[in-house]
Amino acid sequence: MLDEYDVIRLITKRFGPLPEGYAPIGDDVALVPPGRAGECVVLKCDMLVARTDVPPGMSWKMASRKAVGMCVSDFAAKGARPTAFMVSVGIPKGTSEGRVVELASGLVEASREWGVRLVGGDTSEADDLIIDCVMVGFAKEIVRRKGARPGEYVVTTGTFGRTSAGLKILMEGAKAGPRFRKEAISSVFAPRPRLDLGLAISRYLSSSIDSSDGLAISLHTISEMSGVGVRLTEVPYEKGLEEFASLNSYSAEELALYGGEEYEIVGTVGKGRIREAKGKARSMGCELRVIGETVSPDVLKGVEFPDGRKVRRDGWVHLRSKP
Amino acid sequence: MLDEYDVIRLITKRFGPLPEGYAPIGDDVALVPPGRAGECVVLKCDMLVARTDVPPGMSWKMASRKAVGMCVSDFAAKGARPTAFMVSVGIPKGTSEGRVVELASGLVEASREWGVRLVGGDTSEADDLIIDCVMVGFAKEIVRRKGARPGEYVVTTGTFGRTSAGLKILMEGAKAGPRFRKEAISSVFAPRPRLDLGLAISRYLSSSIDSSDGLAISLHTISEMSGVGVRLTEVPYEKGLEEFASLNSYSAEELALYGGEEYEIVGTVGKGRIREAKGKARSMGCELRVIGETVSPDVLKGVEFPDGRKVRRDGWVHLRSKP
Repeated sequence: MLDEYDVIRLITKRFGPLPEGYAPIGDDVALVPPGRAGECVVLKCDMLVARTDVPPGMSWKMASRKAVGMCVSDFAAKGARPTAFMVSVGIPKGTSEGRVVELASGLVEASREWGVRLVGGDTSEADDLIIDCVMVGFAKEIVRRKGARPGEYVVTTGTFGRTSAGLKILMEGAKAGPRFRKEAISSVFAPRPRLDLGLAISRYLSSSIDSSDGLAISLHTISEMSGVGVRLTEVPYEKGLEEFASLNSYSAEELALYGGEEYEIVGTVGKGRIREAKGKARSMGCELRVIGETVSPDVLKGVEFPDGRKVRRDGWVHLRSKP
Repeated sequence: MLDEYDVIRLITKRFGPLPEGYAPIGDDVALVPPGRAGECVVLKCDMLVARTDVPPGMSWKMASRKAVGMCVSDFAAKGARPTAFMVSVGIPKGTSEGRVVELASGLVEASREWGVRLVGGDTSEADDLIIDCVMVGFAKEIVRRKGARPGEYVVTTGTFGRTSAGLKILMEGAKAGPRFRKEAISSVFAPRPRLDLGLAISRYLSSSIDSSDGLAISLHTISEMSGVGVRLTEVPYEKGLEEFASLNSYSAEELALYGGEEYEIVGTVGKGRIREAKGKARSMGCELRVIGETVSPDVLKGVEFPDGRKVRRDGWVHLRSKP
């Protein structure tokens, strides 16, 4: 039976040695070389718990890659480049070597994909697979949730609804055409945080948030923290979402607004900078979509459609939502 | 029923606002001002899982304080001052407000006691209480596990066996006199990492390790990573340990060497510096005990008593040890 030391060995041996300035993995603490002069330390931790975050069919490799990706997405939304990460892993007693190797492979893949070095971690016994990813990077400043002002465009880096659809397919056996099915499941198993895009467009963003709790909550959070109203003129549906919804008698709007787990960036851009911001995104093969505008809180509080219908403050909420 | 946002509110409202340079809690990432020029970022994560780490009678307040203390102890052993911390918390659905307030109180206490600021965290649903503490600080260099050379003294900042005894009292109903009982249980519920002492003596240490996995494993780790043998001339028993052991038919040596969870520093000091190192510790009201010496690996491999008896590489090992 594997113990803590076996697990650490199985993971760390798949990573090459760390460069000068880092402490080799295996001391009491990790050491990361300082950023450039004046750069703050950017930190994020995000805990993946298998029972609520790992649907049927998702391997430990996918889970560990996703745990790292969840942090990468937050860095992307803030315009900060991540440098390194640690993982605190809880696994059940008697976990097989094969599963630990899977977990290690996902971390290796994440490390390569997003250019982040594994610098340390911790291994514990738990009833369920638990991966708490801790990410560190450096930045002079970050884009805040509170920076939006009235009269700006509300933008997103992508479409919504595909991950809710993927979860419906996996958990409730919802029907879907082969192409949509593949895309939807892939967005659950192998999310693609918008790191390069986030780093490129951050200078245009007055406020931003990672959309992983859902589009509606993200918009409400920007509204609350910035003290602005949000008029939502378009719900950016994933291609094929409406067919999928009607095939299964779901509401496409519900799926897109209140699902969560899409790792897109939601933010605001001053109207004078939108052309440049969209051009930058396009130069990277992405589309920055305008989905609404911010208005004075005297005109509108919270988040509404143009016809006055309210967008609920609802989405993925831990301890409330059903997995 | 409390949800994620309630939990975050209950915790953060007990903390004052962060000073200039930090991002207020509640954005996608935490921001910590840079260290002084040339200082590296020191990072540690340590996961507490209630099922294995929280014995009967230990409150959530004690558990959350201890989760932070576990990281503080690693910083202490490395001679690095911690600056800030985050916590990823997993709690069962339906957890009462009272328990979350307890958890928050433990974090507040830890924050004050060790001068570390709470800068962020994450809340998830889990079957069991899980607290992953993430600590950050700055240091030009740290004392490594690998720095010992032959011909040095092996030292500790305290005695051993009280925490194993405390666990025996709590889990197996072992008998003890009132004073020993109190000390032993307190070392389980309210460990006292050696932060001030560690910061003061780090300049004298050629190698060091936090002893939380037990004295024997700590000595073996220094031996392996430094490539030296360790001759253990004294097992530093907690006062009253031998009476406790004989009262319950335990072996005091087993309790002191192979228990774990004592948050002491184990390290090595060059013979020419030992007087100064001991004097420094004494000036802080602590005793730095010489418990052995390092020898060339040609003479001795691993860890032995002077009569040649081997010290086993055994102690608290996650996924192997019984809680």
